Amino acid sequence: MKFESDPIVAEKITKMGKKVVADIFDGNAPAVSLPVRASSNVHYDKDKGLLYLGNSMSERNFLNFAHTRKFMQTMIIASKCKELIEKGKTASIRELYYELKHNIPGTKENTFEGQDESDPLIEDLETMTDSLREELHLKADSSGILFGQIVIEDTGDRIDCSKLGKSGLAIPSIVDDYKFLECDAKYVLVVETKAMVDRLVEEKYHIKNNAILIGLGGQAARGARRLIKLLNERLKLPVYVFTDGDPWGYYIYSVVKTGSMNLAHESKRLATPECRFLGMTMKDIDTFSLQKVTEQLKDVDKKRVNQLLNYEWFQKLHWRKELKSMLNKGARIEQQALASKSLEFVATEYLPGKIARKEFLD
Amino acid sequence: MKFESDPIVAEKITKMGKKVVADIFDGNAPAVSLPVRASSNVHYDKDKGLLYLGNSMSERNFLNFAHTRKFMQTMIIASKCKELIEKGKTASIRELYYELKHNIPGTKENTFEGQDESDPLIEDLETMTDSLREELHLKADSSGILFGQIVIEDTGDRIDCSKLGKSGLAIPSIVDDYKFLECDAKYVLVVETKAMVDRLVEEKYHIKNNAILIGLGGQAARGARRLIKLLNERLKLPVYVFTDGDPWGYYIYSVVKTGSMNLAHESKRLATPECRFLGMTMKDIDTFSLQKVTEQLKDVDKKRVNQLLNYEWFQKLHWRKELKSMLNKGARIEQQALASKSLEFVATEYLPGKIARKEFLD
Repeated sequence: MKFESDPIVAEKITKMGKKVVADIFDGNAPAVSLPVRASSNVHYDKDKGLLYLGNSMSERNFLNFAHTRKFMQTMIIASKCKELIEKGKTASIRELYYELKHNIPGTKENTFEGQDESDPLIEDLETMTDSLREELHLKADSSGILFGQIVIEDTGDRIDCSKLGKSGLAIPSIVDDYKFLECDAKYVLVVETKAMVDRLVEEKYHIKNNAILIGLGGQAARGARRLIKLLNERLKLPVYVFTDGDPWGYYIYSVVKTGSMNLAHESKRLATPECRFLGMTMKDIDTFSLQKVTEQLKDVDKKRVNQLLNYEWFQKLHWRKELKSMLNKGARIEQQALASKSLEFVATEYLPGKIARKEFLD
Repeated sequence: MKFESDPIVAEKITKMGKKVVADIFDGNAPAVSLPVRASSNVHYDKDKGLLYLGNSMSERNFLNFAHTRKFMQTMIIASKCKELIEKGKTASIRELYYELKHNIPGTKENTFEGQDESDPLIEDLETMTDSLREELHLKADSSGILFGQIVIEDTGDRIDCSKLGKSGLAIPSIVDDYKFLECDAKYVLVVETKAMVDRLVEEKYHIKNNAILIGLGGQAARGARRLIKLLNERLKLPVYVFTDGDPWGYYIYSVVKTGSMNLAHESKRLATPECRFLGMTMKDIDTFSLQKVTEQLKDVDKKRVNQLLNYEWFQKLHWRKELKSMLNKGARIEQQALASKSLEFVATEYLPGKIARKEFLD
């Protein structure tokens, strides 16, 4: 697989390698510098609506005994990524670990003892080269499903996503190479659970409303986040997010919109600040008389609501109100609770009504 | 959605209802009888290679105070399933719960307090009517992905699964309505992890070897199990299973092949006794010099190996040997550990070699 970014990323890795070689020949300690990836260095850009990584830098120095092992590991990961780029191959982060795990000649040391050693260094390399993991030709786990009025070219195949029955397209972890050949859709509807997508597909919601449906299956995987971003950016499609009415659902929305804390360095390529929240909201419970099908807030839910209340990107008045209303009611509400009205209700009334009335939380 | 089984299943539910009405008019206690779903009533049929539910029956009697609530719940679930069949609709088991959750008029009682009350009764109804859940128009969670040389008709759409790029078809929970229009594939390769399927797709394994690839993403979902069964049954395709070399992977194989204990009543429609196990095996570790990339068996792994050693369907000599060898080595081996040879190795040597040499565990 080839990406437009390949020559740039390969060049960045080469430059890093040359710097280290120069250090050695100049008689200096080989060292690389990299941004600090800790919550202390994660900030929220209110204007852009994005989490980002701040300017704090740290150094990894080969002659600092505490750094030596990580320095070695960083170098062999960087070298392997450059090889993947040159070969046009991609590897899962687990494969990368196994590819690089070996005995260091003349010692009893292994290069890596576990994937918990290689994974953080991949994130280091991403920040050092300001590249997406996928641009380093590495893959995370994929998850997510797509239906709708769009034709995608993937690896030379032309895929009409409106003709995938009730099965749908599995969203892979790398989507940067997708070409959007045709698109009649008016908007993208991002849905927390796959079961709710099944419901909407059975009601032909995507056909009747000219929508692209993306089912996340819980927290959004990187591939799904990147795809939502690309649909918004390249096709200028509005994005609406539909999750459970609980802190976990609201956080899923915020990750799609603003980015996540541990991937703050990639927000600008993974997050879609323009997306808007459709539901479920606490107001829905009263509007649609859903009191009988709420679930009681558990302690773990309450704790999470309070965490959200402290996040900088949940300080908008309507979100504070929403979260406090949840604590007051002591209740949460699931997407599928709408089935208590009727199976069709979500597709024929709830969603089209909310969109028509522009009843969003931003 | 319409199934061939619709009239038969609707008739069975009607018959059950009529029996209960007759009980009432005859002045008897309304009652239904159903098979016992407990491990004591789960047996292994050595000849067919299938787990099955035995003949122990129990009765659910409305006038037995301990049964009253469950009896009421069973009736409203059966009634709703009949309605779904007649309307040609399907519902997730969570939607069913919410659809049926309501106040019982004139009381403070709810029909259901949680999904943990409705789920077991769905399984009861399956066994009472000898129907698959899907034939009751109910859906479980879906998971799994498909690539390969097969054209499927799904809900009127013609899907060429060899033209889905690196994305692939998401396997839904209901596949009984799939029509297999064309198939050039020589076999089905069932793979435990989606990441390994990504690898095989990148190597164009499915194209070069004329194979259908099914990625499970862990334990096989019902839809994937049923699809494997249908491919084997309708198209007479051999099925090979490729999992991690650990007790969890071996159990995934046994579920695909033999059925699972808690769904023993559905083995004959979900299990594929003809399927064969390709790897990873303990012998692979020596054959391919993978000693450096094994993982140590943890206590929880050892415990699981010993459980497997006690299962009736793991008593074949080669499986006992395999499991004991795992305990002796104190090691397990993952599919992706093959990347230590080279990324391509699994696709160019490991799998084709094993299949050519018929190196299966049955």
